[in-house]
Amino acid sequence: MPDLDKIIQRTLQLAESAGENDEVPVGAVIYDDEGNIVAESENKTRREHSVSFHAELAVIAQMGSKKGSENLSEYHLATSLEPCAMCAQAIAWAKLKTVVIACDDEKSGGVLHNAKVFEHSHHKPEVIYLDSYKEQSANLLKQFFKKKRKK
Amino acid sequence: MPDLDKIIQRTLQLAESAGENDEVPVGAVIYDDEGNIVAESENKTRREHSVSFHAELAVIAQMGSKKGSENLSEYHLATSLEPCAMCAQAIAWAKLKTVVIACDDEKSGGVLHNAKVFEHSHHKPEVIYLDSYKEQSANLLKQFFKKKRKK
Repeated sequence: MPDLDKIIQRTLQLAESAGENDEVPVGAVIYDDEGNIVAESENKTRREHSVSFHAELAVIAQMGSKKGSENLSEYHLATSLEPCAMCAQAIAWAKLKTVVIACDDEKSGGVLHNAKVFEHSHHKPEVIYLDSYKEQSANLLKQFFKKKRKK
Repeated sequence: MPDLDKIIQRTLQLAESAGENDEVPVGAVIYDDEGNIVAESENKTRREHSVSFHAELAVIAQMGSKKGSENLSEYHLATSLEPCAMCAQAIAWAKLKTVVIACDDEKSGGVLHNAKVFEHSHHKPEVIYLDSYKEQSANLLKQFFKKKRKK
């Protein structure tokens, strides 16, 4: 069984690194059935000048490139923040088995909130909300936006 | 005023080219207030091994790279097929002013159908459905999937 605590902790480290790089602090990884992390990315939107570099979308593109196929149906994804509608639909297109979420996002989430993309998508990954990490992830975001407002 | 017929015809040419390259035939362009096309892409999902290379997402990434910013709020996007939820949310994040659609997509669209992403997103682009091009776009898709089934 994958060690989801270890996996989600890695997404939080990546989120912290994104924040240090002046990006909204979000991190995501792709892991296999045994829990081995096979790809990881932090949010790189600002650095790559494109909204398509949210952590989840970036890690999906990275893993597709590594595998040589856009079909990632043997893998799972974990993320420090609830995916937006863009990333949720990308997860569905890539046919990932599971999405593990550390913190929900009432404002911009597209899985548990708002567009609730998996209620409409053909492929419906299993969603696991590990809310014991919510505070840690939310604090990274709060600190980031507090620092931004001071600038 | 932008010549929307000319712009949408270009998306259909790109869609046709995608089909010739064994990709689902979809094309998208970004244009300015005067109607000048400033970036264009066909669907490259299979070739780039990632769902993040839908025509709309690819053209947004390309334009962001060209401009050096993920904020494309001075531009408009046109596409040969209704954007899915992934591409619709990307359009909202990029703050594009307008989305021009040649053909709706009951099965996988995320603007007029299913998740209806702009009903939930903060930024809501103007949506123009130029349905006089629906048949042309739909035929490209029908022919593509017919050929696929024969293989």
